[in-house]
Amino acid sequence: MNEISKKILEGNIRTASHLIRNIEDKMPETDEIMKEIFKVKGNSHVIGLTGAPGAGKSTLTDEIITAFRKKNNTIGVLAVDPTSPFTGGAILGDRIRMMSHASDKDVFVRSLATRGATGGLSKAVGEAIYILEAMGKDKVIVETCGVGQQEVDIIDHAQTVVVVLVPGMGDEVQAIKAGLMEIADIFVINKADRDGADKLYRELINMISMSSKKSDSNLWEIPVLRIGNFKEPKKFSEEVEKLCNKIEEHYEYLYQNKLLSTKIRQKTKAEFKEALWAKILEPILNNLIEENKMESMIDKLTNKETDPYTLAEEVAKQYLI
Amino acid sequence: MNEISKKILEGNIRTASHLIRNIEDKMPETDEIMKEIFKVKGNSHVIGLTGAPGAGKSTLTDEIITAFRKKNNTIGVLAVDPTSPFTGGAILGDRIRMMSHASDKDVFVRSLATRGATGGLSKAVGEAIYILEAMGKDKVIVETCGVGQQEVDIIDHAQTVVVVLVPGMGDEVQAIKAGLMEIADIFVINKADRDGADKLYRELINMISMSSKKSDSNLWEIPVLRIGNFKEPKKFSEEVEKLCNKIEEHYEYLYQNKLLSTKIRQKTKAEFKEALWAKILEPILNNLIEENKMESMIDKLTNKETDPYTLAEEVAKQYLI
Repeated sequence: MNEISKKILEGNIRTASHLIRNIEDKMPETDEIMKEIFKVKGNSHVIGLTGAPGAGKSTLTDEIITAFRKKNNTIGVLAVDPTSPFTGGAILGDRIRMMSHASDKDVFVRSLATRGATGGLSKAVGEAIYILEAMGKDKVIVETCGVGQQEVDIIDHAQTVVVVLVPGMGDEVQAIKAGLMEIADIFVINKADRDGADKLYRELINMISMSSKKSDSNLWEIPVLRIGNFKEPKKFSEEVEKLCNKIEEHYEYLYQNKLLSTKIRQKTKAEFKEALWAKILEPILNNLIEENKMESMIDKLTNKETDPYTLAEEVAKQYLI
Repeated sequence: MNEISKKILEGNIRTASHLIRNIEDKMPETDEIMKEIFKVKGNSHVIGLTGAPGAGKSTLTDEIITAFRKKNNTIGVLAVDPTSPFTGGAILGDRIRMMSHASDKDVFVRSLATRGATGGLSKAVGEAIYILEAMGKDKVIVETCGVGQQEVDIIDHAQTVVVVLVPGMGDEVQAIKAGLMEIADIFVINKADRDGADKLYRELINMISMSSKKSDSNLWEIPVLRIGNFKEPKKFSEEVEKLCNKIEEHYEYLYQNKLLSTKIRQKTKAEFKEALWAKILEPILNNLIEENKMESMIDKLTNKETDPYTLAEEVAKQYLI
C-alpha cells in the first residue's frame, strides 16, 4: 500500500483534503491511489441531505454534526455546491462552512464542485465518500442543493436520504415534492414555525399515505419531522436530535431487511459506469484532441456535412475492436 | 429523406411529439431519423430560461409566448422538469402547462425528463431543439429548474440565457447568484413588487459592474429587468414585452459580433461527445449485460476483490483496438 493510502487509513486530514482536491481537478495520478482506497472495507453510514436553495440545509447540517458528536460519532461532510462554469470552484468555501466545528478534529468538511466531463461531479463525490469511509468516519453527510438529475445521481451514493423543505415556496415546489417522494427516506419541514407549515405537513402525509399503498413490500413509512427556528437553540437542538435518531433507525431498518447490500450494489454499478467513462471515452477524446482531429470534426458538423451519430460511428470503428 | 423527417419539416405536431417521446425513451430507431434532422439548417433563436423553484418561471414563459406571438413568431417550448427517478416522467405534464396557448397551433410545448445514462437529459434536450428548429420555429424556449451542473449543461444549448430571480430567497441564493452570473445574458427580478427587490437589484448591478471590468472584450452589459405582479395583467404584459425586446437585442448582438458561430460550435462539441457516449460506451455496457458479465463484475467489486478502475481497464483492453 502506498504512502498516501496509508495516511488516509490513519485519518490524516491534510492528505485527505489534498487527495479530494486532486480528484476534483481530475489529476490522473489519483486513479492508482483510489484503487487501494476502493478495496478498504468501510463501515460508514452515508446520509444524503438535499433540498432547494434557502431551505436552511447548512444550519441544519451544522446541528446534525453536533448531535452525532454527542454520540461520539466521527463525521465527514461533503458539501456539493452550485458551481461556476468558469472557475469550476465551489462558491461557498469550506472556510465559511461549519465554522462551529472548525476546531474539532473528528469533523472533516469539504466542498466539492466539478465542471467538465459528463458525470464528473457524481464520480468525484463517490470517490470522496470512499476516502471518508477509509478514514473510518462513522457518518458521512453529503449535502446537495437542488433537485435536478445531477442531484439525484449524487444522492444515489447515500443510504439514507433526508429531504429538507420549507413552508411557502410556491406551487412549483408542489411538483418537485412528488419527485422528491421517490428519493426521500425522511422528510424535514425546516423553519416549521413559519406560515404554511401545517399545510405542507398535511400535503406530505397525504402524499406518503398514497404512495405507500402502491408498494406493500416497503416496510419503511417515510416520517415527516418538523424543525422550528434555530434562534431557539434548545428546542432546535432537541428536534435535530430526534432527526438524528430517525436517521439511525433507517439504517437499522436497511440492515435488518437486507436492503443495505442492495443499495451498495446499485452504488457500485454507478461507480463502475463512471470508471468505464474515464478509462474508455476520455482517452478517445484526448486522442482526438492530440491528433488535431477534433476541430476538423466540429467544422464538418457545423457545416452540416455530416451528423454527430455518423461521425461517432466512424470514431467507434477506429477505436473499437 | 424518410417519412418522419419529412413530416417534421412540414411542422407536423403529432410526429414531433412522438419523436421527442421516443428520444426520451432512448428508442434506438431515433438515431437514423435524427441523422437527417441534424443536417437541416435551422434558424431558431434558442432561449434558455432558468431559476430556482418558486421563481415563477412558468407564468413568465406563458407571457413571453404571448409577447412573441404578437410579433407573429412561431414558438417551441421545452420544459425540463425535475424527474422522478422511478417513473422517469415529467411531473408537470404538458397538459397543465401553458394552458392559455393550448389552442394555438404555432405554439408547441413539450415537457422533457430522462432518467438513465449519464448526460441523457442534456442529449435529449439537444435533439429536441434540433427537431423544433427543423419544424421552423422562430423561437425555442428551454425552461429549466435549478442551478446544478445538469442545468448548466442544458442551458449550454441556448444562445440567450435569461436567469429569473425573486426577492427574499435567503443567503444561500447569494452564492448561487455568483454562479448564475457566469451563464446569464439577462437577469429578471420576478415578483419585483415584493420586499427586498431593490436590495436584490442593487446586488445584481454591483456584481455585474465588478465582473464586467474583468473582461473588456465583452461588449454586452447584462441587463437587470424588474417584472412585477402578474395579477396586474397590463403592467405585467408591458414588462414582459420589454424583456422580449432585450432577448432579441441580445441575439442581434451575438450576430453582429460573430459570437453566434462560437456558441453554435460549443453546442456542437457537446453534442458530439454525447453521440460518442451513445455509440461507444452504451454498446459496451449492453454487451456486458447481454453476456451476463455485468452482474459477476459487480459481485467482484462489492466483495472488494478488485476496484472499478482496474476492472474498467480490463474492459477497455477487451473492446478497444
